[in-house]
Amino acid sequence: MKETDTIYDVVGIGNAMVDVLAKVGEGFLTERKLHKGGMTLLDAATAGKIYADIIPEREVSGGSAANTVAGMASLGSDCAFIGKVHDDELGQNFRRDIGAAGIDFFTPALLEGPATGRSIVLVTPDAERSMFTYLGAATRLTVDDIDENIIKASKYTFLEGYLWEEENAKQAALKACELAHKYNRKVVLSLSDKTCTKNHREELLEVVKEQIDILFANEHEIKALFASDDFMGILDMVKPLVEIAAITRNAQGSVIVNGRVKIFVEAEKVETVVDSTGAGDLYAAGFLYGMIRERSLGTCAMIGSIAASEIISHYGARPEVSLRGFVRNRLLQYGKKA
Amino acid sequence: MKETDTIYDVVGIGNAMVDVLAKVGEGFLTERKLHKGGMTLLDAATAGKIYADIIPEREVSGGSAANTVAGMASLGSDCAFIGKVHDDELGQNFRRDIGAAGIDFFTPALLEGPATGRSIVLVTPDAERSMFTYLGAATRLTVDDIDENIIKASKYTFLEGYLWEEENAKQAALKACELAHKYNRKVVLSLSDKTCTKNHREELLEVVKEQIDILFANEHEIKALFASDDFMGILDMVKPLVEIAAITRNAQGSVIVNGRVKIFVEAEKVETVVDSTGAGDLYAAGFLYGMIRERSLGTCAMIGSIAASEIISHYGARPEVSLRGFVRNRLLQYGKKA
Repeated sequence: MKETDTIYDVVGIGNAMVDVLAKVGEGFLTERKLHKGGMTLLDAATAGKIYADIIPEREVSGGSAANTVAGMASLGSDCAFIGKVHDDELGQNFRRDIGAAGIDFFTPALLEGPATGRSIVLVTPDAERSMFTYLGAATRLTVDDIDENIIKASKYTFLEGYLWEEENAKQAALKACELAHKYNRKVVLSLSDKTCTKNHREELLEVVKEQIDILFANEHEIKALFASDDFMGILDMVKPLVEIAAITRNAQGSVIVNGRVKIFVEAEKVETVVDSTGAGDLYAAGFLYGMIRERSLGTCAMIGSIAASEIISHYGARPEVSLRGFVRNRLLQYGKKA
Repeated sequence: MKETDTIYDVVGIGNAMVDVLAKVGEGFLTERKLHKGGMTLLDAATAGKIYADIIPEREVSGGSAANTVAGMASLGSDCAFIGKVHDDELGQNFRRDIGAAGIDFFTPALLEGPATGRSIVLVTPDAERSMFTYLGAATRLTVDDIDENIIKASKYTFLEGYLWEEENAKQAALKACELAHKYNRKVVLSLSDKTCTKNHREELLEVVKEQIDILFANEHEIKALFASDDFMGILDMVKPLVEIAAITRNAQGSVIVNGRVKIFVEAEKVETVVDSTGAGDLYAAGFLYGMIRERSLGTCAMIGSIAASEIISHYGARPEVSLRGFVRNRLLQYGKKA
């Protein structure tokens, strides 16, 4: 199967989520016994109660893999997305946003059952973010939603680790791996979250070994995956498992492991970090865009870092400018081509 | 000036030397009060006396920059060399060897004055190498030997740090820098030796800042250049000075500094190191060959390391196999193209 037979640069498969952002006082969390910081999975009832009690400042389409394909589309890549929304207001918003970004999204919406998934991001006065996620309709993704023709037509199949939170979504992810390899395509996994990685460590490690060509993770997630705190040791552990591992470390930049080569790339400087949601997703977007343009791995990492710098300078995990121009302009300053 | 106007991939400018290898007992050094280990510069008389007293095991054409162009020629690059020999037996050997390697060498030989330069490498029973260098005719290189047409016709002008040992050779090197930049060509410097770097630190640092695009050094040389032992700090110090710095660290592999990107590449494993002479020269050869083939910097470093591994597995600093096939075969095992 030739790469020239592809239509899409990437198909993202993940939880279709809407990010709901609200500012609350400290009391809001303590009164409701909500865990501060990190990501907590919620049931429908609790999610509904919180949603009813907040004044949403913004509702922005999100979801890890969806953010990545939205970033890639903004860079000029051809993208598709597979994920499950309900045919409710949030679901319609999600579909509209992803369509407006120029991404093909054909997965049929649920007409009954759980509502569209949402991540309620509560920002306390100390600027800390506590994320409460109700997966909802996203959990109803099944193997039947994995369109063989789309996988076949995509250079990269991009999976998010969150899919391992739900048995049938995980089965859908494994089906996508199988189809991608059948057509000699590359499979990419982004680990999504430290706790999620810890909870599904054995299964994720197995899938990384057997199925994944390119792995994205932040430092916490990769430490959770290998149950180790020895960062340099981890780089040697991940080396034989995947072709490329790209590990982000916030202000410390990122590290790319590619066989006998380890590449350390400085982070793009940002004046004020407004909201770090989506930084990893957009790093992956920039990196893969560089791969598709056949740039060196160092340049791929620089593009990833620049894309991430745009996202964290405002609320929400979707770009607010055309990333293509943003990245081109920044790279030119470093004497590199996007 | 377009790069397509070039004839040569690289022109090497350096001391034209013949390496004379001999095994001696410990007493040979102590009786003559010769410094064990490292490189010592000798006058004609002392060099003559040592040369008369040894039984040369091998005489192999050498010289740092000459080794590099010989390595590149073996990889398939088009190369020229500028350097000074005497029209004596060693000089004729040098000219024959460099011609046989397919390298253009037009610099006229001395008909009078000092003999062809030689590095007498004495190997003691403990396997340590002590190098005694008589620069001889090499010191008579002048600005008149720097052929403008050759510099203009070469993508890279490659200089060795040893040129800074002699005032008129240094002036020739600076003239080459000026001409290369006039025609928008790149200038490469290899630091050659720790002591030489220490002795000419200020001048070399100035030339690195003002003239050099690509810098090669080993860990000891770069520490001497910056008069610092803080290796990671040095990487940040060299970053703004050159486009690319490639620093070799023996079994620890090499580090490439390229703006915001630092690349750590593992060393190619070698069963037995027979003679480490020329390891740095051949690393530079492989690296530049990769640059000319537009490979990623990580792959360039891997090619450098593979080329070096061939050289250190036998006596002498010139390849004993066609490096092109050697490197291609080894790279294929890592899934890379040469």
